[in-house]
Amino acid sequence: MRSVTVKSPATLSNLCCGFDILGMALEAPYDLITISESAQSGIRIRHLDAYGLPEDPLLNISGVALQSFINALGSQQGFDVVVEKKIKPGSGIGSSAASAAGVVVAANELMGRPFNNNQLLSFAMDGEVLASGSRHADNLAPCIYGGLVLIRDTPSLDIIPLSLPPLYVTIVHPQIEIKTSYAREILPKEIPLKLAVNQWANVAGLVAGFQQGDYELIGRSLEDVIVEPVRSKLIPGFDEVKQKSLAAGALGGGISGSGPSLFMLSKEKNLAEKVAVEMSGVFERLNIEYKTYVTTVAAHGVEVLHT
Amino acid sequence: MRSVTVKSPATLSNLCCGFDILGMALEAPYDLITISESAQSGIRIRHLDAYGLPEDPLLNISGVALQSFINALGSQQGFDVVVEKKIKPGSGIGSSAASAAGVVVAANELMGRPFNNNQLLSFAMDGEVLASGSRHADNLAPCIYGGLVLIRDTPSLDIIPLSLPPLYVTIVHPQIEIKTSYAREILPKEIPLKLAVNQWANVAGLVAGFQQGDYELIGRSLEDVIVEPVRSKLIPGFDEVKQKSLAAGALGGGISGSGPSLFMLSKEKNLAEKVAVEMSGVFERLNIEYKTYVTTVAAHGVEVLHT
Repeated sequence: MRSVTVKSPATLSNLCCGFDILGMALEAPYDLITISESAQSGIRIRHLDAYGLPEDPLLNISGVALQSFINALGSQQGFDVVVEKKIKPGSGIGSSAASAAGVVVAANELMGRPFNNNQLLSFAMDGEVLASGSRHADNLAPCIYGGLVLIRDTPSLDIIPLSLPPLYVTIVHPQIEIKTSYAREILPKEIPLKLAVNQWANVAGLVAGFQQGDYELIGRSLEDVIVEPVRSKLIPGFDEVKQKSLAAGALGGGISGSGPSLFMLSKEKNLAEKVAVEMSGVFERLNIEYKTYVTTVAAHGVEVLHT
Repeated sequence: MRSVTVKSPATLSNLCCGFDILGMALEAPYDLITISESAQSGIRIRHLDAYGLPEDPLLNISGVALQSFINALGSQQGFDVVVEKKIKPGSGIGSSAASAAGVVVAANELMGRPFNNNQLLSFAMDGEVLASGSRHADNLAPCIYGGLVLIRDTPSLDIIPLSLPPLYVTIVHPQIEIKTSYAREILPKEIPLKLAVNQWANVAGLVAGFQQGDYELIGRSLEDVIVEPVRSKLIPGFDEVKQKSLAAGALGGGISGSGPSLFMLSKEKNLAEKVAVEMSGVFERLNIEYKTYVTTVAAHGVEVLHT
């Protein structure tokens, strides 16, 4: 039976001021997903990792996304899926998005690419609903498209790839739990117009900075005056991580997705590594288990390894 | 006595979703301002136009801006200023900004350019306070810098020039009065977070569209879900102008500044001219006097004509 294996990358969503609209694919970490044609109809999922995720396809993000793919295909083809998650669920770096996007890109490859990226994105969003309760694309779109993307409009899936200069990304994942749904609940329903103008000025600066390759402008624009003040309170050590990372030479950063992971962007690898040391120091002192990553932006999204 | 004459351009601020942060210099209309050294200290202002603006330098926007320039210079130099306004006050295309920016750029030229653009912008903002009651730069910055600019941060005057593809601008100025202060008063103090996210997605799309030269993306992003729904009610014919302009081939548009002028961007000159015909038709039928302009983006800001 034919099979396809893909690497499905972690992703950074929001990027401070770009709440709900910007996302970036990362070189590491990534999940490995293998999908095989089966003589038997239906979906069977097996996890090689130890995260205890449900293997019932109706309760598994990959399963729901793949079912959506199969429905659109209008086929009775059955699939066996083997998932080796390396992106810890609940880390805030797009673990569920990697599951949903990876499996549909792999299935598409296996079936001779009947669907385009936006169709795959839509199937994957059906899977993501299981994780977050809503159709969001800010992790899925970069996971599928790669690089840095703007989700200008979610209902119409208006996805705009944005160019950017070489950037290194440091991520720290303190091993605490923040439910995406709770992180969304605590957001204000209404915000002052004045702050909103502030935020969209920074969004404009961030997009311009990325596209012009202006590192200083990227740094000045990586500010979030609306969501970060609320969510950062859920993450012990947040202020210290930020302050020490900037002092170590990071351009800027904040909460990755809805947390608890924090990210910092740097112009050079050695700075990103220094930032990782500072981040580690903070959580060592706080006696909170953590994991750090020093990585870079992945130009491609889900990558087919072999067929 | 030496003198300098400048052309000071009209400007388009806000650009729909870019409320308070984006502005664009226009080729037409423009004011003509001549400044001459005087043996007598103090400022004397004379208007060649028929708009009845105060010539007392303390009550005149050019006068206040120039006084701020003189104060920073720490000189006793006196100046004679002759202003020929062609941008009608209260039109919403940066008439007061042209007065304030033009005079300080001219004075700077006359004195051997002691100040940089941001210093000049700051002097001009002192003048603008007289018109709008607050320090805004969204008309002044494009007036001085030219082209399309982002005002990322007003207090620190973080002005970011943005590249853009060739664009034609159609403006209609219906001769009704909307006070800037009133247009500001009626804005909501608080807005739904959901709408704000919508707005900053469009701001990001607009900046990306300009910088990528993607006309379709510019068009899709020229949406304002926050300010336009409120302010458009003050402008008779607004919905019809918008609908007919789009049908005639405009990329998009909306209220210029705080109105009452409306603007539309088009990819080609003949489309911009068709848009002007449609706009004229609306105000003809409404029996409201109006003036239309078909122009383009001015690459340079205030321009020194001769010294």
